[in-house]
Amino acid sequence: MSISPEFALIHRHFAGCAPPNFLALGIGDDAALLPWPVADAQRRGNPPPAGQKAALAITTDTLVAGVHFFADGDPAALGWKALAVNLSDLAAMGARPVAFLLALTIPKADEQWLRPFVEGLAQCARAYEVALVGGDTTRGPLAITITALGEVPWGEAVRRSGAQVGDDLWVSGQPGRAGLGLAIRKGQLADSLCGAAEWLAALDRPIPRVALGLALRTVAHAMLDLSDGLTQDACHLVEERPELAVVLKEEWLPLAPLLDGGAPLALARTALLAGGDDYELLFTAPATARAAVLTASKTSATPVHRIGSIEPRSEGEPLMLKTTAGAMTPLTPRGWDPFREES
Amino acid sequence: MSISPEFALIHRHFAGCAPPNFLALGIGDDAALLPWPVADAQRRGNPPPAGQKAALAITTDTLVAGVHFFADGDPAALGWKALAVNLSDLAAMGARPVAFLLALTIPKADEQWLRPFVEGLAQCARAYEVALVGGDTTRGPLAITITALGEVPWGEAVRRSGAQVGDDLWVSGQPGRAGLGLAIRKGQLADSLCGAAEWLAALDRPIPRVALGLALRTVAHAMLDLSDGLTQDACHLVEERPELAVVLKEEWLPLAPLLDGGAPLALARTALLAGGDDYELLFTAPATARAAVLTASKTSATPVHRIGSIEPRSEGEPLMLKTTAGAMTPLTPRGWDPFREES
Repeated sequence: MSISPEFALIHRHFAGCAPPNFLALGIGDDAALLPWPVADAQRRGNPPPAGQKAALAITTDTLVAGVHFFADGDPAALGWKALAVNLSDLAAMGARPVAFLLALTIPKADEQWLRPFVEGLAQCARAYEVALVGGDTTRGPLAITITALGEVPWGEAVRRSGAQVGDDLWVSGQPGRAGLGLAIRKGQLADSLCGAAEWLAALDRPIPRVALGLALRTVAHAMLDLSDGLTQDACHLVEERPELAVVLKEEWLPLAPLLDGGAPLALARTALLAGGDDYELLFTAPATARAAVLTASKTSATPVHRIGSIEPRSEGEPLMLKTTAGAMTPLTPRGWDPFREES
Repeated sequence: MSISPEFALIHRHFAGCAPPNFLALGIGDDAALLPWPVADAQRRGNPPPAGQKAALAITTDTLVAGVHFFADGDPAALGWKALAVNLSDLAAMGARPVAFLLALTIPKADEQWLRPFVEGLAQCARAYEVALVGGDTTRGPLAITITALGEVPWGEAVRRSGAQVGDDLWVSGQPGRAGLGLAIRKGQLADSLCGAAEWLAALDRPIPRVALGLALRTVAHAMLDLSDGLTQDACHLVEERPELAVVLKEEWLPLAPLLDGGAPLALARTALLAGGDDYELLFTAPATARAAVLTASKTSATPVHRIGSIEPRSEGEPLMLKTTAGAMTPLTPRGWDPFREES
């Protein structure tokens, strides 16, 4: 789920509509959390009973042709990605994906397109053992909205806002690949580079880090998935925590693999720091949990990199870069804005 | 949720993906039903444990500008309707609506449009005590996808397929009004007719029959909500029951109120039988439950009409009309097809 200025407006209008204690967590995280079943008393504003065992994590994301994907792109990849990005939101809560609904808007009933789209979707559903439980098909400009449901033990979901001073900052896998894949698709980068196939795969068939998210559930203090770009998403970790800043350590950023793949330095750096669509997990954990993080990485077969730390905020800067030379400089969050006109 | 040929294709592709016992009820009804929490054993195909107390009912519907609504229409009414049609799906299961997610695609960030839209949405949310728990906003052609969640005691949800021979067929409120409202909007009917305001209100701000649905939970054998039109939706009641037919009794159809409002006979009849967007509940109940149905009607302050019965199917006709003269004639289901080009 994404928090745009528009959604903030929507949220403001709804303030006072929903009893504040009804939700474990509402708008503003990767997924909403609800106690379930919801007793009538809870609906009216009382906190969940002490014995509450399960939470329902639920998230929704829309992909629009021409905005989030190329309308003439591979429908199988699109089917995979539409589900994967929602599972990534659940992974970022430490929730186990269970089921999803598909609302599909297509210009016409075109089985040549629909068949591979559904096959890609089904591949992703099989890979992560989630069931298609319902949906809607309508005629209109091509767009895909998926709502995914997961479950998580009550009180154990990992939120965006849980970071603490002194926490390590970690990221999974290799952020920046999807951004370089997009650069290839746009003709800004040659598809003959040795990293090209990997970058395009990262763009087209992102891997939701479900197993890592589950393994980090009792380890991470805060977690989210990278959809807007590393710097912008890093700021989301401290959005509700004005006393905290995220410090990225330049020499720890996993830039070398992108350069090894043949990306020019400037583009690789931009893709790493501001490229969207990575769906890696960005999380914080106490320094005492380093071994536990590495164990989670190993059991989930997902690489992780320690790239910075959480520090007290000074001079109002939510995000700082500690350069290789040791200087601290503010970093302007940059990322992908779905309402910005594409250049 | 709607079952189009496209969704049937999607469903076929997914056959075998989801363990069959995992869902209480999947694609093909107004909402999906899941046991919740979902124990791991259940995910792998075992039926829910004997002590299962609650089901999660979940449904999603998309409204597309130019297909489901006029792009230049009243945004407040649109906000109301987008949520109301999803609550109607939950009502048709006998589920209590609890929460919803909003995935909104808009061409640009236009507060003049967004503010009344959200106000209409919030009005509906307040009226039915449902909480907005999350969502997504994206740029693109105007479309609204809402996913609504409800709860229902395990085993008590009312399905489409539960009709029995000899059941009475009932409908709530006044089907046909939305169709006449659409005729006014299209300039086919004068807006000076005395029924005009009521018909436009039915089109713009449909009333989901939540209280009636809850009151009928232990009374109705089968239930759905009217979205495609009475004749088409009536056929859905016997889609999985080839031994049953729906018989509409002409003299019982509530045509008079539409005529009293000034609608010409032919148009009133078409609107009643084939007009979509009514969101009334169509349900069956045993003849012995007539008093219980009327009590449910009274406690929910929702009028109901007995309009026919469920009979054994003969000669393959799922839908018959018993004319005022006593003749039985097959009735061709007609309704609104979201993939049909608008005339």
